[in-house]
Amino acid sequence: MSTLQVAGRKSLVILSGGAYPQLSDEIAGHIGVTVTGTTRREFANGELFIRPNDSVRGTDAFVIQAHTTPINDWLMESLILVDALKRASAKRITVVAPFYPYARQDKKHRGREPISARLIADLFKTAGADRLMAVDLHTAQIQGFFDGPVDHLFAMPLLSSYIRDKYSADRDLVVVSPDTGRVRMAEQWADELGGLGIAFVHKSRNIDEVNEVEANRVVGDVAGKCCLLIDDMIDTAGSITKAADLLFDAGATEVVVAATHGIFSGPAVDRLKNSRIAEVVVTNTLPIRPEQEFDSLTVLSIAPLLAQAIKEVFEDGSVTSLFRGRS
Amino acid sequence: MSTLQVAGRKSLVILSGGAYPQLSDEIAGHIGVTVTGTTRREFANGELFIRPNDSVRGTDAFVIQAHTTPINDWLMESLILVDALKRASAKRITVVAPFYPYARQDKKHRGREPISARLIADLFKTAGADRLMAVDLHTAQIQGFFDGPVDHLFAMPLLSSYIRDKYSADRDLVVVSPDTGRVRMAEQWADELGGLGIAFVHKSRNIDEVNEVEANRVVGDVAGKCCLLIDDMIDTAGSITKAADLLFDAGATEVVVAATHGIFSGPAVDRLKNSRIAEVVVTNTLPIRPEQEFDSLTVLSIAPLLAQAIKEVFEDGSVTSLFRGRS
Amino acid sequence: MSTLQVAGRKSLVILSGGAYPQLSDEIAGHIGVTVTGTTRREFANGELFIRPNDSVRGTDAFVIQAHTTPINDWLMESLILVDALKRASAKRITVVAPFYPYARQDKKHRGREPISARLIADLFKTAGADRLMAVDLHTAQIQGFFDGPVDHLFAMPLLSSYIRDKYSADRDLVVVSPDTGRVRMAEQWADELGGLGIAFVHKSRNIDEVNEVEANRVVGDVAGKCCLLIDDMIDTAGSITKAADLLFDAGATEVVVAATHGIFSGPAVDRLKNSRIAEVVVTNTLPIRPEQEFDSLTVLSIAPLLAQAIKEVFEDGSVTSLFRGRS
Amino acid sequence: MSTLQVAGRKSLVILSGGAYPQLSDEIAGHIGVTVTGTTRREFANGELFIRPNDSVRGTDAFVIQAHTTPINDWLMESLILVDALKRASAKRITVVAPFYPYARQDKKHRGREPISARLIADLFKTAGADRLMAVDLHTAQIQGFFDGPVDHLFAMPLLSSYIRDKYSADRDLVVVSPDTGRVRMAEQWADELGGLGIAFVHKSRNIDEVNEVEANRVVGDVAGKCCLLIDDMIDTAGSITKAADLLFDAGATEVVVAATHGIFSGPAVDRLKNSRIAEVVVTNTLPIRPEQEFDSLTVLSIAPLLAQAIKEVFEDGSVTSLFRGRS
Amino acid sequence: MSTLQVAGRKSLVILSGGAYPQLSDEIAGHIGVTVTGTTRREFANGELFIRPNDSVRGTDAFVIQAHTTPINDWLMESLILVDALKRASAKRITVVAPFYPYARQDKKHRGREPISARLIADLFKTAGADRLMAVDLHTAQIQGFFDGPVDHLFAMPLLSSYIRDKYSADRDLVVVSPDTGRVRMAEQWADELGGLGIAFVHKSRNIDEVNEVEANRVVGDVAGKCCLLIDDMIDTAGSITKAADLLFDAGATEVVVAATHGIFSGPAVDRLKNSRIAEVVVTNTLPIRPEQEFDSLTVLSIAPLLAQAIKEVFEDGSVTSLFRGRS
Amino acid sequence: MSTLQVAGRKSLVILSGGAYPQLSDEIAGHIGVTVTGTTRREFANGELFIRPNDSVRGTDAFVIQAHTTPINDWLMESLILVDALKRASAKRITVVAPFYPYARQDKKHRGREPISARLIADLFKTAGADRLMAVDLHTAQIQGFFDGPVDHLFAMPLLSSYIRDKYSADRDLVVVSPDTGRVRMAEQWADELGGLGIAFVHKSRNIDEVNEVEANRVVGDVAGKCCLLIDDMIDTAGSITKAADLLFDAGATEVVVAATHGIFSGPAVDRLKNSRIAEVVVTNTLPIRPEQEFDSLTVLSIAPLLAQAIKEVFEDGSVTSLFRGRS
Repeated sequence: MSTLQVAGRKSLVILSGGAYPQLSDEIAGHIGVTVTGTTRREFANGELFIRPNDSVRGTDAFVIQAHTTPINDWLMESLILVDALKRASAKRITVVAPFYPYARQDKKHRGREPISARLIADLFKTAGADRLMAVDLHTAQIQGFFDGPVDHLFAMPLLSSYIRDKYSADRDLVVVSPDTGRVRMAEQWADELGGLGIAFVHKSRNIDEVNEVEANRVVGDVAGKCCLLIDDMIDTAGSITKAADLLFDAGATEVVVAATHGIFSGPAVDRLKNSRIAEVVVTNTLPIRPEQEFDSLTVLSIAPLLAQAIKEVFEDGSVTSLFRGRS
Repeated sequence: MSTLQVAGRKSLVILSGGAYPQLSDEIAGHIGVTVTGTTRREFANGELFIRPNDSVRGTDAFVIQAHTTPINDWLMESLILVDALKRASAKRITVVAPFYPYARQDKKHRGREPISARLIADLFKTAGADRLMAVDLHTAQIQGFFDGPVDHLFAMPLLSSYIRDKYSADRDLVVVSPDTGRVRMAEQWADELGGLGIAFVHKSRNIDEVNEVEANRVVGDVAGKCCLLIDDMIDTAGSITKAADLLFDAGATEVVVAATHGIFSGPAVDRLKNSRIAEVVVTNTLPIRPEQEFDSLTVLSIAPLLAQAIKEVFEDGSVTSLFRGRS
Repeated sequence: MSTLQVAGRKSLVILSGGAYPQLSDEIAGHIGVTVTGTTRREFANGELFIRPNDSVRGTDAFVIQAHTTPINDWLMESLILVDALKRASAKRITVVAPFYPYARQDKKHRGREPISARLIADLFKTAGADRLMAVDLHTAQIQGFFDGPVDHLFAMPLLSSYIRDKYSADRDLVVVSPDTGRVRMAEQWADELGGLGIAFVHKSRNIDEVNEVEANRVVGDVAGKCCLLIDDMIDTAGSITKAADLLFDAGATEVVVAATHGIFSGPAVDRLKNSRIAEVVVTNTLPIRPEQEFDSLTVLSIAPLLAQAIKEVFEDGSVTSLFRGRS
Repeated sequence: MSTLQVAGRKSLVILSGGAYPQLSDEIAGHIGVTVTGTTRREFANGELFIRPNDSVRGTDAFVIQAHTTPINDWLMESLILVDALKRASAKRITVVAPFYPYARQDKKHRGREPISARLIADLFKTAGADRLMAVDLHTAQIQGFFDGPVDHLFAMPLLSSYIRDKYSADRDLVVVSPDTGRVRMAEQWADELGGLGIAFVHKSRNIDEVNEVEANRVVGDVAGKCCLLIDDMIDTAGSITKAADLLFDAGATEVVVAATHGIFSGPAVDRLKNSRIAEVVVTNTLPIRPEQEFDSLTVLSIAPLLAQAIKEVFEDGSVTSLFRGRS
Repeated sequence: MSTLQVAGRKSLVILSGGAYPQLSDEIAGHIGVTVTGTTRREFANGELFIRPNDSVRGTDAFVIQAHTTPINDWLMESLILVDALKRASAKRITVVAPFYPYARQDKKHRGREPISARLIADLFKTAGADRLMAVDLHTAQIQGFFDGPVDHLFAMPLLSSYIRDKYSADRDLVVVSPDTGRVRMAEQWADELGGLGIAFVHKSRNIDEVNEVEANRVVGDVAGKCCLLIDDMIDTAGSITKAADLLFDAGATEVVVAATHGIFSGPAVDRLKNSRIAEVVVTNTLPIRPEQEFDSLTVLSIAPLLAQAIKEVFEDGSVTSLFRGRS
Repeated sequence: MSTLQVAGRKSLVILSGGAYPQLSDEIAGHIGVTVTGTTRREFANGELFIRPNDSVRGTDAFVIQAHTTPINDWLMESLILVDALKRASAKRITVVAPFYPYARQDKKHRGREPISARLIADLFKTAGADRLMAVDLHTAQIQGFFDGPVDHLFAMPLLSSYIRDKYSADRDLVVVSPDTGRVRMAEQWADELGGLGIAFVHKSRNIDEVNEVEANRVVGDVAGKCCLLIDDMIDTAGSITKAADLLFDAGATEVVVAATHGIFSGPAVDRLKNSRIAEVVVTNTLPIRPEQEFDSLTVLSIAPLLAQAIKEVFEDGSVTSLFRGRS
């Protein structure tokens, strides 16, 4: 007999970077597995080390990492873990990066700039990632930065369902983009919530003048309305809180904020606490540390969505079907 | 003597695809060279063939092609010419695609869609292109699709200078985006022209209703103003002419259109002729065939800009400096 | 439990380009599946779009395309469909190109020529093809242009079986190559049909003379015989019909033509109609459009062979066994 | 029905290069299969040819080759066989090179040297190898030369078990490295055998002197002891026999040699025969030709270990577990 | 000052493998340089080592190797030398392989065969070769196996000039191919020599019969003529000497042989000596060892052609021009 | 005129990461240029940004970065800067990493470990580095991890010259390795300093016992001698200070430490201060922060060596010649 044959099996394993193990556990729980243990170590000079404790040979491995602060450490840990899995003969490696790092550097604004979001895609590929999964990429074009499949998930159904239940009934809602870059996204929200109106903040610069003057103003009708201010991420919350002020100045009666990624760096929490924003709704693609919590903050769990997507990927189902065809 | 040494030289050659040789000639003229001749042949079944007539060994070769209709033929010709140059030992190959083909397929709108703009970048790379040069990519992220240098040129200085001279003095101008995807671009135009106001057309869909109703309306203040409707390309001119109608309905006194790429497919010319648009200004990144000309059309030549950029690339100058740092 | 295990399955899907859906349907029918639907669209400027309608995640996907006129459009469609499948997580992608495009540009005849047949192999690879399947490559070396498995199928068993049944009994057959490039192929046909004699047409050029004179003559014995004129493809039918004339001049009593690929471009149909060729036998690796049909044309279906080969590939059988070891 | 589904199966096949078919047979026997036959041919000018006799489509193929003299022939044969398997649609190809060729050229000792051990890894990759398996790489860093999984097996458990059984009971053992490059390895042996002492030979050069003098001396305590002289390979046996002489000079009572790879080139057998070394223990990672045998030589079979590792790889088990975690 | 500028220079160096240093010296002499020295060493187990003695940093390096017996050793030496040059920062590396190794394995004759000629191209690329140069590739398609420039040189001008001078005046010449695979080449020779007639040997097999009978016969008119029997290489000289016998049987008065590569393996010299062939003309792309010489052998030097081509490549001239456009 | 020709020039630019700009300035000063300015920015969430202020088009760019704590930040900054240079058309990019990050993870000690040192080499390559330059790689094999030229510099001439001047005259020196992994390096030091004796620390483990006992002891003769304890790097100084204690216990009269890379993490400074080590000599491949300074520390500047090597690389000289042939 020159051939030894056995029935094929597929095995799913979940591995977690060290940034936000609770999210990995929550996702694994929804799938019905436990996270495969790893041994993590940090050399005295900051070099990281991570090794799966159990055999991953032949598995369909999903590496979940929340790219929060210190972001470069978590990113390197992701890459090193992918390298370890590749060399340990994992059959397929999917990097699950709910928040895609360096997504805002997706183009050159000026000559000689890096395009770090493309670089990140290439680094993952080089380390050994076969596939990526992410939630609400800063721009959808980032999918095209990776030479392979990208499962692009959307938090909008989760967020909009919450907003619809809580605010749609008795408010006159308008969707507002905090700047001109997110007007298309506002339009999608407006469609999702049933044909609402939209508005945005226009930052005007007069570059012909000697002293450049920047004036912000609201374009669109917000007077007497409840404004749903949307964005993909909240970092320092500067533009969001300034936009909220402008909206109130323009006659808005209430401002609610919805965003996928709650980074909440530096002054973000103070700014939001001290603002007149009624509620800030985000998901937990990034961990919310205790000092980042505040009264008006609502965090919805992204874990069920990620778990469902991972299962569809593993079982050759359809991720597209989770979003009525969008991708 | 074990080493033969000679002084190094750099040689620039310009090659042209067959789509729009006049543009290549015009560019070459500005640089002070003639286009290197090629032998082009089409097999009876449509397979293309192209071969440089003179040695290109060791040269810095620029392949200029206008990706007009029939676009797949010109694209294949570009790829084949790059292959020929690579195998003929050209030292460096830059594909000059003033209009980048398939740029509108730069992301997945739904699951299972291709990202053809990334594919195009990879095809050029595979054929042997070391660098790309393009004018006003549909989205700036396309730069990140190519694994190498991309010289991204902007027609805005050329177009805005024309608009400023002709319309700024005695009109109350407002910059209008024909949809929510170009509002950021409108903002840049508004800055460029000295702090103008902006507006856009909002396509509203109510997806909760059984019979989906789409209603378009203008967001922003256009009444009594001269609207500068901007876009990166005009293909069938459907959304542009509908936007113009809406603007007049909203009280605009005059509508002028500026765009980089004049594709003018199918009904475009008729729609524009029959519209109330005062003037349509484009560049010649694509050839304007006689039957595409109409009275209110103004075509500015992009050749001086491309010539200058090619010279900067060849002479290791700075392309960035042509645009005050933008890229 | 840290591992979720399920039994492995393999799924075959057939996708079809738009060039010749009937062939894809016929192949799929033999396999016992239906072709997976796609949504195809052409932008006004000729840019193509194609998207599978159903999930292809984890499948063994076969993309069938007939590279007929307009060949560059169908080629780009193939590449775009492969890109879509790759990004949609198909497990393995085989491009089935019964007629391999640009196969005649398989070497440089002169300096600075492209090698487009290699380029095509690289383009398929870049788009995401893992494997290729083709029928009667113009030269067998093209297999070596692709960095991966190529299933090279032969139409000769199909064609020669037809010829043997119809012509062997009562004719004195000789196999004739229309030029010196196909003499080896004529020898293989002669062996296949039981040790026949062979002949070929010699195009003689006297390059020392001032006025280059080209004279064609038949080398080998054809007088009083039925000539089986063979070739891999018939494009404009120029050399085939000229060869037939020479054969009759040299005393042949009958001429029959057999070829795999019936391209029939331009003057082909008229030339063949007006010739004294008794019968032209081809397969349907390319569609025969109504205006390409003529009385003496016989078209044999290649679909059963392709279906069988696809099944062998899917089921890890042996394609080699279909051809008694040849490849 | 648009999808044809069948249950997945995995098939293992073993292929053998021509260098040492007995080892391949022995390994296959332990696994319970026979080696898949190949047709091997050598062109008159030395070009090699090898082709599997049976279909390998979809298999998990292991190519076993012993890189013995003439090493470049066996290496080329390995590469050609891998190419054949890749083009024949093997699903996964593991090169099993018990003795990794060119392992000693793993770094540059001087400028302009090649790093042939890295080159070999790249050649295997280029030919189509997905994975490597080797025994006792000359330096463990060679694992990092291959861009993919490497199963690195250790002969030490096999060798040390033999040594422990035969020599531990009644000898005062000390582990000796023949030079400074293997002291770390001696330490590992000393640990493995229960905390033994170690020593090594120091080759001292005084490079300040006009006439460079090299003096070798033993560092560590060996007087009155049985010295276990260890190395990864024995090539010409020059340094091993010189080291043995030095050890006896330093008062050693007995010298036993253990090494993984018995190359035994040129004068090796004579040197070892004529030495006072009591026993030389190696494995059969390389064939021992009849003329290489001598009385004090003991050859342990590496086949059971390789068979077990191949099975673990095929069945997605753990190779690491074979060595208590080491790799 | 942030930039240090110096004038660019180009430096050519010639390196030689150990197979045929006389050819390298002869080529270098024509160029006017000496071959850069190397240190070559063979490990006891046959592993090779080669290192340039002088700095090659920034040079345009040409590696000349004659792939004669033992061919795999010389091939590995070539690859190792290229690796050394790459790591030593040579700017560009051209492998000059006058006889391309494994060229006869350029396609699959049966399933599961390797395509070793493609593998060789990939191995050179992987080692670091930027370019290849070869004389009379077994098939021109091999150019397409390399992903980069290939300078394909032709010995026909050299050989045909010799034949024309010696045989054209007073003989009635006909060009003969020894089999059906070289008829096209015979046609090119016939054109080159001024419109000669051609013939070939047909090996007929009747595969329908139980006892397969193979009969060879000459197709074409050779009676009373001087036959110029041509081929690209002479290995064992079996088919050439058999063809000569057939030609005399068919009435030829004289047989002369011309081929580019004189391999002369095994029985070749005896066969040729004992044949009635008047003269055998080859070039020295491979070394002719003393035992390979015989009275009727004429060896023309290929060195001037290679030297001229290398100079054209170095100086960015035109190799194409050396052959009136052919490549 | 179809070709524009200009004389070639080469331009060198130095760019610096933010970790240790003083070293970059020092190197640039030796070369006679200033460091090209960059704009550096850190996003609130820790994402880094870096952009060259001046055109680098066509330059030979050297990126100097000291990979000190926080090491992952500096590493990402290096990668991003390389990406920016690649996209800005630098002609050649050399990453100068005096201390190569993650060098200690150069092999798998156990199964499923990453090989991060190889990963780092691949990340640099992916970002766009053409070449690497480093000082005293942890193991020389790391050169083989990079697919391209690596300039491997040695600090030993610098350090040993200092040691020779200060300690050779009146001490009885012996070179000591702190563990079995550096004995070969000790031997090289011993040769360099004129044929000294060597010793090392042996960490013995008895792995057969239930309670594993580890005992360290000095192998080699150190009594009454001045011990030169050498290593490539000093991180926490744990093994170095323990080794020093053992040496004194074994009768050493004085201990001096020499190492290339002074990392001095965590308890290192306290341990060294509190030890009886007479002097610790390192180079400034990493910055020594004020709190890392201590009385017995001597820091030699590596800048002249790096400057000289960069000049040799730029001017196509010989780096090898700087080290009498070693590499």
